[in-house]
Amino acid sequence: MSLDRLIEKIAALQNPTVAGLDTRLEYVPESIRAESFGKFGRTLEGAADAVLTFNRGVIDALCGIVPAVKPQCACYEMYGWQGMRALRGTIDYAKKKGMYVIVDGKRNDIGSTMRAYAAAYLGETDVGGERIAAFGADALTVNGYLGTDGIRPLLDVCAGFDKGIFVLAKTSNPSSDELQNQSFEGGETLYEAMGRFCAEWGGSLPGRHGYNGVGAVVGATWPKQLKELREMLPETFFLVPGYGTQGGTADDVAPAFDGNGLGAVVNASRTLLCAWKERGAPEADYAKAAAAEAVRMRDAIRARVGAIRL
Amino acid sequence: MSLDRLIEKIAALQNPTVAGLDTRLEYVPESIRAESFGKFGRTLEGAADAVLTFNRGVIDALCGIVPAVKPQCACYEMYGWQGMRALRGTIDYAKKKGMYVIVDGKRNDIGSTMRAYAAAYLGETDVGGERIAAFGADALTVNGYLGTDGIRPLLDVCAGFDKGIFVLAKTSNPSSDELQNQSFEGGETLYEAMGRFCAEWGGSLPGRHGYNGVGAVVGATWPKQLKELREMLPETFFLVPGYGTQGGTADDVAPAFDGNGLGAVVNASRTLLCAWKERGAPEADYAKAAAAEAVRMRDAIRARVGAIRL
Repeated sequence: MSLDRLIEKIAALQNPTVAGLDTRLEYVPESIRAESFGKFGRTLEGAADAVLTFNRGVIDALCGIVPAVKPQCACYEMYGWQGMRALRGTIDYAKKKGMYVIVDGKRNDIGSTMRAYAAAYLGETDVGGERIAAFGADALTVNGYLGTDGIRPLLDVCAGFDKGIFVLAKTSNPSSDELQNQSFEGGETLYEAMGRFCAEWGGSLPGRHGYNGVGAVVGATWPKQLKELREMLPETFFLVPGYGTQGGTADDVAPAFDGNGLGAVVNASRTLLCAWKERGAPEADYAKAAAAEAVRMRDAIRARVGAIRL
Repeated sequence: MSLDRLIEKIAALQNPTVAGLDTRLEYVPESIRAESFGKFGRTLEGAADAVLTFNRGVIDALCGIVPAVKPQCACYEMYGWQGMRALRGTIDYAKKKGMYVIVDGKRNDIGSTMRAYAAAYLGETDVGGERIAAFGADALTVNGYLGTDGIRPLLDVCAGFDKGIFVLAKTSNPSSDELQNQSFEGGETLYEAMGRFCAEWGGSLPGRHGYNGVGAVVGATWPKQLKELREMLPETFFLVPGYGTQGGTADDVAPAFDGNGLGAVVNASRTLLCAWKERGAPEADYAKAAAAEAVRMRDAIRARVGAIRL
């Protein structure tokens, strides 16, 4: 199923990373903001226009280097429905440029409602007999707190539309241990239980490259748990956030990979989007700086992981 | 903090219920759909226009009876950014009619991202120095799987803008027991742990009526757990979904309330929105049927709970 398409793009570019498009207005060069504000004023529409323009530049620079983008929903919802229009524009543009699109929405709800989320991001919405893809992403991050009936509608859509999901297991933030690391009676932790469910849910979506259609989110900031979950879940592909600004390194993410350099895709967001600021580059070079940082990240991880073989 | 405003509206109308606006196109009378499709075609824009028109009719009919509405994000996201524009329109209209608005998004993420969600739904987004409320709701449902640092940004916004949140504890769906009912070492279940965190997080947002600004979501379909959590969490206000179509009754929700008829707000969605279908009413009477059903629900719950006293 769909994570195969991600895996094949990773192999084609020999790059197991994804660019997180957590675009905030303050990351966007002043000249782009000024042009958007000139057109639309200091409004949500102006902000959304600036974000979309910035994203297009980043996608143009990265599409030959990085196989996937991961727009973070919150950063678009923050700019209202106008921001959600920019999310749609970003998804369309990334797909046109051949990139795989993971929408980071961490959605969760009861079954009947999850059908609506599955339709919104991965499948199609029925509008009086017309079938329309509202956002048209390739994969969606979800939260499994509600259990199997909140996940099943996604599996149906993944099977029907060749899409994938990533379920939160062990998140990258410092407080993730408060609940996720607690042990149930019997000794299994909550994040391990969630990992076990990922394997179970993914069983119905087998893949061509040893990994099924239900991935797990496991933070780069927790290398011990990453290693443990990799051993426990040999057919579960990992989305690994927390590289770069949050503190994760190439050494930290190495345990997520198998002997063929497969098994995970590592995300960096601010590290790429704000590279122009970090490097003191002229703002016109923001996309070039993102690309240079993406190459550096690819090479650092590849140096630990080796060649990627399908 | 903000749940006080909800509690005061509940007391003013003597009605501890909320109308779930989980509006799907198939709930909308044919005449409304035909008019929207006539204007915009069978497009996401046409669907969103029909949903908004339907919602306005429901809000007009309910605003003197029911204190609050709870639009379900998924049902708007399903219709794309156009649907999110209808969400914004629905929120604006409900607030204009004096209703309290709980956006049911079950959002969750790491701290820096939760700041964006908090701005999007409860606070304001900075656009080049202008402060703009992107959606402008009164409260937001959230998922606490990521722990305290994913919740703290919401508490800051709740304090600054007089808003509230509801954290998922024990959800109404059948599979909610898979993870939520598991016991940690020491005997506490996951849903109890989440309840305990609600009490802890809410401590910083005290209220005027005995309940703080961090509510908990507890399903009407689990009356035993509802009773247990009410005893365990005397200052936590409950949002109780699962009444009506999902199977919850007035008897089931009664344990959520205290001796003053306070402590919870009970949601029904399909039961109200599809009342015209269930009752075989002419489609022009859809709003009237929703109001009749809302009165029936109010009276059934009030018969168990008694007068509401602040």
